[in-house]
Amino acid sequence: MPGNTFGQALRVTTAGESHGPGELVIVDGCPPGLTLTPEDFRRDMARRRPGQSALTTPRHEDDVPELISGIFEGRTTGAPIGIYIRNQDARSKDYEALRDVYRPGHADLAYDQKYGVRDHRGGGRASARETVTRVAAGVIAKKLLLEAAGTQVLGYVVGVGTLRFEHPDPSAVTLAEVEANAVRCPDPTMAMAMTELIEEARRAGDSLGSVVELVAHPVPVGLGEPVFDKLKADLGKALFSLPAVVGVEYGAGFRLAQSRGSAANDPLTVKDGQVRPGSNRHGGILGGISTGLPIVLRAGLKPTSSIPLVQETVTKEGELTTLRVGGRHDPCLGPRFVPMAEAMIALTLADHLLRHRAQNGAWR
Amino acid sequence: MPGNTFGQALRVTTAGESHGPGELVIVDGCPPGLTLTPEDFRRDMARRRPGQSALTTPRHEDDVPELISGIFEGRTTGAPIGIYIRNQDARSKDYEALRDVYRPGHADLAYDQKYGVRDHRGGGRASARETVTRVAAGVIAKKLLLEAAGTQVLGYVVGVGTLRFEHPDPSAVTLAEVEANAVRCPDPTMAMAMTELIEEARRAGDSLGSVVELVAHPVPVGLGEPVFDKLKADLGKALFSLPAVVGVEYGAGFRLAQSRGSAANDPLTVKDGQVRPGSNRHGGILGGISTGLPIVLRAGLKPTSSIPLVQETVTKEGELTTLRVGGRHDPCLGPRFVPMAEAMIALTLADHLLRHRAQNGAWR
Amino acid sequence: MPGNTFGQALRVTTAGESHGPGELVIVDGCPPGLTLTPEDFRRDMARRRPGQSALTTPRHEDDVPELISGIFEGRTTGAPIGIYIRNQDARSKDYEALRDVYRPGHADLAYDQKYGVRDHRGGGRASARETVTRVAAGVIAKKLLLEAAGTQVLGYVVGVGTLRFEHPDPSAVTLAEVEANAVRCPDPTMAMAMTELIEEARRAGDSLGSVVELVAHPVPVGLGEPVFDKLKADLGKALFSLPAVVGVEYGAGFRLAQSRGSAANDPLTVKDGQVRPGSNRHGGILGGISTGLPIVLRAGLKPTSSIPLVQETVTKEGELTTLRVGGRHDPCLGPRFVPMAEAMIALTLADHLLRHRAQNGAWR
Amino acid sequence: MPGNTFGQALRVTTAGESHGPGELVIVDGCPPGLTLTPEDFRRDMARRRPGQSALTTPRHEDDVPELISGIFEGRTTGAPIGIYIRNQDARSKDYEALRDVYRPGHADLAYDQKYGVRDHRGGGRASARETVTRVAAGVIAKKLLLEAAGTQVLGYVVGVGTLRFEHPDPSAVTLAEVEANAVRCPDPTMAMAMTELIEEARRAGDSLGSVVELVAHPVPVGLGEPVFDKLKADLGKALFSLPAVVGVEYGAGFRLAQSRGSAANDPLTVKDGQVRPGSNRHGGILGGISTGLPIVLRAGLKPTSSIPLVQETVTKEGELTTLRVGGRHDPCLGPRFVPMAEAMIALTLADHLLRHRAQNGAWR
Repeated sequence: MPGNTFGQALRVTTAGESHGPGELVIVDGCPPGLTLTPEDFRRDMARRRPGQSALTTPRHEDDVPELISGIFEGRTTGAPIGIYIRNQDARSKDYEALRDVYRPGHADLAYDQKYGVRDHRGGGRASARETVTRVAAGVIAKKLLLEAAGTQVLGYVVGVGTLRFEHPDPSAVTLAEVEANAVRCPDPTMAMAMTELIEEARRAGDSLGSVVELVAHPVPVGLGEPVFDKLKADLGKALFSLPAVVGVEYGAGFRLAQSRGSAANDPLTVKDGQVRPGSNRHGGILGGISTGLPIVLRAGLKPTSSIPLVQETVTKEGELTTLRVGGRHDPCLGPRFVPMAEAMIALTLADHLLRHRAQNGAWR
Repeated sequence: MPGNTFGQALRVTTAGESHGPGELVIVDGCPPGLTLTPEDFRRDMARRRPGQSALTTPRHEDDVPELISGIFEGRTTGAPIGIYIRNQDARSKDYEALRDVYRPGHADLAYDQKYGVRDHRGGGRASARETVTRVAAGVIAKKLLLEAAGTQVLGYVVGVGTLRFEHPDPSAVTLAEVEANAVRCPDPTMAMAMTELIEEARRAGDSLGSVVELVAHPVPVGLGEPVFDKLKADLGKALFSLPAVVGVEYGAGFRLAQSRGSAANDPLTVKDGQVRPGSNRHGGILGGISTGLPIVLRAGLKPTSSIPLVQETVTKEGELTTLRVGGRHDPCLGPRFVPMAEAMIALTLADHLLRHRAQNGAWR
Repeated sequence: MPGNTFGQALRVTTAGESHGPGELVIVDGCPPGLTLTPEDFRRDMARRRPGQSALTTPRHEDDVPELISGIFEGRTTGAPIGIYIRNQDARSKDYEALRDVYRPGHADLAYDQKYGVRDHRGGGRASARETVTRVAAGVIAKKLLLEAAGTQVLGYVVGVGTLRFEHPDPSAVTLAEVEANAVRCPDPTMAMAMTELIEEARRAGDSLGSVVELVAHPVPVGLGEPVFDKLKADLGKALFSLPAVVGVEYGAGFRLAQSRGSAANDPLTVKDGQVRPGSNRHGGILGGISTGLPIVLRAGLKPTSSIPLVQETVTKEGELTTLRVGGRHDPCLGPRFVPMAEAMIALTLADHLLRHRAQNGAWR
Repeated sequence: MPGNTFGQALRVTTAGESHGPGELVIVDGCPPGLTLTPEDFRRDMARRRPGQSALTTPRHEDDVPELISGIFEGRTTGAPIGIYIRNQDARSKDYEALRDVYRPGHADLAYDQKYGVRDHRGGGRASARETVTRVAAGVIAKKLLLEAAGTQVLGYVVGVGTLRFEHPDPSAVTLAEVEANAVRCPDPTMAMAMTELIEEARRAGDSLGSVVELVAHPVPVGLGEPVFDKLKADLGKALFSLPAVVGVEYGAGFRLAQSRGSAANDPLTVKDGQVRPGSNRHGGILGGISTGLPIVLRAGLKPTSSIPLVQETVTKEGELTTLRVGGRHDPCLGPRFVPMAEAMIALTLADHLLRHRAQNGAWR
């Protein structure tokens, strides 16, 4: 009923506020025998970390996860994996001015109205700080997917403001290409244009929307639970549960909504002795079940709500006022959204891998 | 773990295949004392029914729900409400040709690969026939929302093929406007253009994609459970769980992904003594919690996969073949998708209303 | 949140009142490929049926389950299995006198106070009639257990009133021994004594408590999910969810609470090359996980609450009155409780079999 | 699917092993506005603590819970409450001898067989150390129950070995009476006898079984969710989920299984203008729903499995051996079980309070 648990067979529960002592995550249901060390977390924690480039907030977080439980002599035991990530460099004073005023585009007002109380420091539970636990849990899911099915999950920026990039073969994009630039667009020329656009917005005290594409490949055939827990439904929920996501589409997405059936269906064919769709407008999912082709989704992100420009708003007492949001914020959310979204995709796929195994797997 | 249950506090479980004896739905958790009679189901069952207009399949279904339990002397008792909807006019022979061949764009192949067995008759469990149970359950959710919070949920077609319609105030659209034409677009002129486009596609043996907009209003402030069960996440899942949905966006949606923060944030203001956003680019949800403004979402639907045109495909034995899909199918899914989507939105909101009440308060 | 669903990986949802049109059950998560026909249900439905002997109520129920979904050409498909069992011979008039009076020992008052409304006919949802759906679902679970692990579940009466019977080797009891007499005690001499005691109570217008023992064997090692969903916890819940159960113990049970550790521990040994406890005071479960020895539990049942003897009670208006409960009721619940309890044990074990497989099974 | 989460509306998730860095617990769904400070935890943490008396193990644990999240300015915010309790004084070396040998009566063998790997240090996840998180979560549940409904939960020892104590009015027992002696029996004379019996067993290198009674009072009418989540079912599961519990009974329990209906039913009467059962053989629950009378349950505990006496067992390699279990262990589990069981009862009642509110009403 409360909403801080994700998944069913691989179950992630999180807690923590932006300016409290730290963030907690418990990952329950991970199969035993998976190697897992603090080193495994380093790369994705660094990719999510604020202050990693000129395009992101300079807030400094070390984000070294302490593995509290569920691991014995370097391997998972089947017991729940508890992780504690301490908060550092939390400047609560930056937010004292926000105790009595609501930031437009933020959850401030909604939290106050829902709960009657709100931790105003840095957005409290509504801060994107909570995503550090998702990325940590996602590391475990990624390892599980890789070991169990060879599956890799990768995200990259395909839109910043009105700039759009389309890769002819999403499953061919490499992590090296994505990490080659701060904006995380695998095309170097487009990356440069996006970077300039973001810098321009930052100088104007403004922010920009963006689009991130996610690819998982190879994905075992058969993941997804009809009729309500279709794979596209749970992946859609996974992305929409992240801050700032205003739209999700898979495969050819909203373009399909404009097309004809004769041009939208992917004809079936035989490849390497296996029946498969011969093209991938369907994004790797049909009938809510993975088809074996690369899963491709996109998330649309609104521009960062916290901007230095003056905005109209209201105080807790209901008086009109204006606000310049201080603090340290990314002018475009896309680049740091990439590892968060990869984590949610990986958690969803790993959960469905185990769920599928419960009903359809081999007897041990 | 299996996927045929939706919701947590208001929990819907369904069963049934297209060509079996009927469809079952159990709605658990409905508050007691709600008036509920077979008559309440008539309108939405009729709106979902195939064969209701020239734009939809002529398959005839009466869809009279039998209320098996949970109601005593015309009111809900708090016990689970069981409903049985018999299948009629199921022409299984139409589908005998599909026993050994996979239809492109359908779940046929995925089901066979996931389960190793498949009820090929009319798509079996993957048929849109299962949505009749969603619409029936949605009737109960709509009644609950209306009685508890005055909330109404309405959908309408805003896109067919490349035609697009935008209503300046979604919360002002009326059911009468929507039901005034077969295509369920509240604008009569646009409705006529859409109808012509659909008729043209049908004559060509083809089908068309579409976009449906959903509005809920008024919605109580505070619905949605951070951080994973944000209202936008659960509504997104609700829509993606329906057949053919390839994209979901809320508020200004993917347009926000192209804009600047200064143009995307909704400034807060005071209206009728209450602090509220003064505009609704955010679609009625911030931080995953309802703000009190109308909730506005859109679902993009791919074109009907079943088309009379010849398509390339593969048999169960892995031989290439071609296929003309017979049977009776809508050339555009949008119009009949409207009541299905309304039902899923209503079920999600009602579920969150009860979930919110568990932790935060009361309306009884 | 509502309570009409049982299990996680094998999920059973039920609906139906004693005097409504029928009972519904949806079994979700059953692996595909299991053979299942109406014939499979005959034996256990007959064992649960009222009126099967002089010891049980003469109410006549045919209880032929209609298989609505999830089965294709005689095998499960992985889709939810929907079952409809019509109510017959429901004499609602028998209960008209109970509209305004509360029966002692029954749920009448509690339902009225919880929901503010109550279907008084035959106890409505609180009637033991609902257990017909459990027995039907249990048939599926039993088939699954047998096919997957050779596991059989058997119950029998070991106590009626002050009479007690103890079998030296519970796993050696056979179905034939149990079904050889109406009281379902595998010892013929004890069965005769129990029968006489029950007949004597019936003649006195009274009823008797009883104890039923349940055995599952062989059970795969490793079932049970620490720390909250221990196998003993979920089996305990399964039995306590049945009407009239006032106590549950496993293995040597409450006797262990009186003993010393040196006499209570089961020393480990090696048998057929496998490490196993050498005795079974622990009832087949240690640390909440099955050890491979027979699982042995006992449920204590209170006497039937509905008795012809005059009882003091209160009307809906709060006036003291006396009541003789008419209708048709078993004077001792034990014999008919046997198949209900077997069903709940089977459902719990099958659920845990699938849950265990999700985390610990082989990759397919 | 995995088993480290308890409850639905008030959801507790735990992690941690006996000899790891610490124990984590996340309590999700707690209503906002509840005052909560570290001081609130002191009493029950001390009551659970080992080494508190001559009757318990001398292992020293400070057990100061660090409140990581969900609290702002001394009150709960509605966000998940994360708690970290560090392990101290963990002498892993004590357990090195147990790496390759299985202790009889313990989960050692079952864990190895289930997961293929085991943290042997102090029982790892199977250690009673994990109950420290239950007690911490229970403190929150107790506060919630007290504030919302005035409900108090109290446990006490009523049996040690063959000694039995019966209180004429369980709801009259006070915390002061219980805490007046180390064995936690509210009768001073019986407490002395129990103490002597335990001391005698300890000197003999042995251990003793025990029985603990739990009382909750006053309990709101209407808690419990038919038909599977009956209050007695969920309370039964709560107790059975604790280590060493081999039996649970409520009200007059197994005695009812020996009695006649005329002597077992509690006649209804009117008291203070309310219809209530006039006696409480039913233990405060009828039809799975609370009746407003005190809820009374008992748990039977087996003797401590870890005893200094020589026991026969088997090594990991399957060789017969003998074992004297070192380490520090209580000779009788009852006294320290009291706060653990109170916590589980409180968590279950609080969960059902919120669940009931979702469907049926409100107290805010």
